[in-house]
Amino acid sequence: MSRRLVECVPNFSEGRRSEVIEAIVESFRNRAGCTLFDYRADPDHNRLVVSLVGEPEPLAESLLQAAEIAIRHIDMNRHEGAHPRIGALDVIPFTPVQGMTMEECVAFSHDFGKCFHEHTGIPVYFYEESALRPERSRLEVIRKGQYERLKTDVTQAERAPDVGKSALHPTAGATVIGARKFLVAFNVNLKTHDLSVAKQIATTVRASSGGLCAVKGIGVPLEGRGLVQVSMNIVDYEKNALYRVLEMIRFEARRWGIEVAETEIYGMIPARALLESAAYYLQVAGFDPLQVLELKLLDKMGTEGPE
Amino acid sequence: MSRRLVECVPNFSEGRRSEVIEAIVESFRNRAGCTLFDYRADPDHNRLVVSLVGEPEPLAESLLQAAEIAIRHIDMNRHEGAHPRIGALDVIPFTPVQGMTMEECVAFSHDFGKCFHEHTGIPVYFYEESALRPERSRLEVIRKGQYERLKTDVTQAERAPDVGKSALHPTAGATVIGARKFLVAFNVNLKTHDLSVAKQIATTVRASSGGLCAVKGIGVPLEGRGLVQVSMNIVDYEKNALYRVLEMIRFEARRWGIEVAETEIYGMIPARALLESAAYYLQVAGFDPLQVLELKLLDKMGTEGPE
Repeated sequence: MSRRLVECVPNFSEGRRSEVIEAIVESFRNRAGCTLFDYRADPDHNRLVVSLVGEPEPLAESLLQAAEIAIRHIDMNRHEGAHPRIGALDVIPFTPVQGMTMEECVAFSHDFGKCFHEHTGIPVYFYEESALRPERSRLEVIRKGQYERLKTDVTQAERAPDVGKSALHPTAGATVIGARKFLVAFNVNLKTHDLSVAKQIATTVRASSGGLCAVKGIGVPLEGRGLVQVSMNIVDYEKNALYRVLEMIRFEARRWGIEVAETEIYGMIPARALLESAAYYLQVAGFDPLQVLELKLLDKMGTEGPE
Repeated sequence: MSRRLVECVPNFSEGRRSEVIEAIVESFRNRAGCTLFDYRADPDHNRLVVSLVGEPEPLAESLLQAAEIAIRHIDMNRHEGAHPRIGALDVIPFTPVQGMTMEECVAFSHDFGKCFHEHTGIPVYFYEESALRPERSRLEVIRKGQYERLKTDVTQAERAPDVGKSALHPTAGATVIGARKFLVAFNVNLKTHDLSVAKQIATTVRASSGGLCAVKGIGVPLEGRGLVQVSMNIVDYEKNALYRVLEMIRFEARRWGIEVAETEIYGMIPARALLESAAYYLQVAGFDPLQVLELKLLDKMGTEGPE
């Protein structure tokens, strides 16, 4: 069996007190089976975003330990910050990376949500793919009115937590947990000053106006560079491969005789999202991602003993 | 500092006795910091080829343990097989995968070669990038006449080992050790029956007849498929990227109005060899391989504690 790996980006409502930030982050260091990628604390948002990849069990353990520290140090009744939030450990999104289907990741998030509530007493809402009520797939629906309003609204049936009683934790509020696909930020820069071209192409490729189902996009100017950009989030790179998005933009731009100057990938991307495009353009028949040395190594590491 | 990873494909002169094969392979199982990919024993060649990836130190330890077992069970005076060989542990090639330059890998191979000789008494020849005499970069020069002839020729100055006295180990012979780049097997299939086209294009792209410096290639027919193939080894994928080799073949084939039907990647390939082509075709500006989730995970695993 292949090693199971999950990405997790927990968001904590603390971006100012360095001793609290460090205590939380310490929960994720030097753990067998769970690797800390990085963390960013934003004082204006008063929020800490941690990036982790690990196997489900050690990942869950490290999150429970971090939750204890967050409960001890964060009081939502005193919390101020620019970013919307309803709890000390505000959001815990899980993304399957390897050896796990989305269905398995959803099941894991549900199990973890129950376990999390038992350990912490914090009520849980499930969102994205893990949502138990369709409208709760959207985070903004769950966080409506933020901590201050949810404190009283939680007694209404439509705002009741998915796990726990109809009351928030007195200081730690509530936590949103769920599984979601990896989001790829992909921008295509076009050789024109004409912003209307980027806007029109964004309209053509994005799902909201009838384009590719997994693409969100807008047209923006790149000030000072004499280019315009189709700025996109690909919310399911398996359905809408990068090469398909790019080639579609390329043939749309041809209508105005405009070429693609370059593209950008912002932030992290799973290997398979790029390998799919490499295999397409290189016309590789019968390509298997496990032919890639590093992917085979990660896959083997779980089955061949300690690493 | 980034985690150092080396690929190693040791060749043992035993492909028939399953208990010996299993005893050797056991040295590579369940080791922290070293992962067994696979192994293939060939009875006709009477040879065992093991595929490993690991950090230098645990990799070296597992090789020394396997060498002890090979010495105990393999007598080169009784060895018969179709594959050229000079020793019980015939060849140990190292390939840098991550966190290590070729120069560092050469230094590691030299250190390991000395250590190997001290532990086993087996004389060592350095080949490929680790060769101390230019002609010894080629394995066939070192193995000329095989075990049977080297046993007496070893006393000649030009055939003296690089480490150890001018005498082979009485039963285990000698071992060839060295660092080399990762070899990518890349085939391009063309939509024609005309073998002369594949042969002519192979001549154009390969180094031996003035083409790309890191490409070896021949033209072969694909019987029964109505295609011909330019069958290649890319010996340095950083110098001659896959996309460049493919596009060069594409524009050469255009001379005859012939198209590329598909390509094949045979066996393993390092992620960066495919990411380079993905970034080229997708026109990604400023792409960093550590934006790839799995590569960052492998990179972090060495620095963030146990895995």
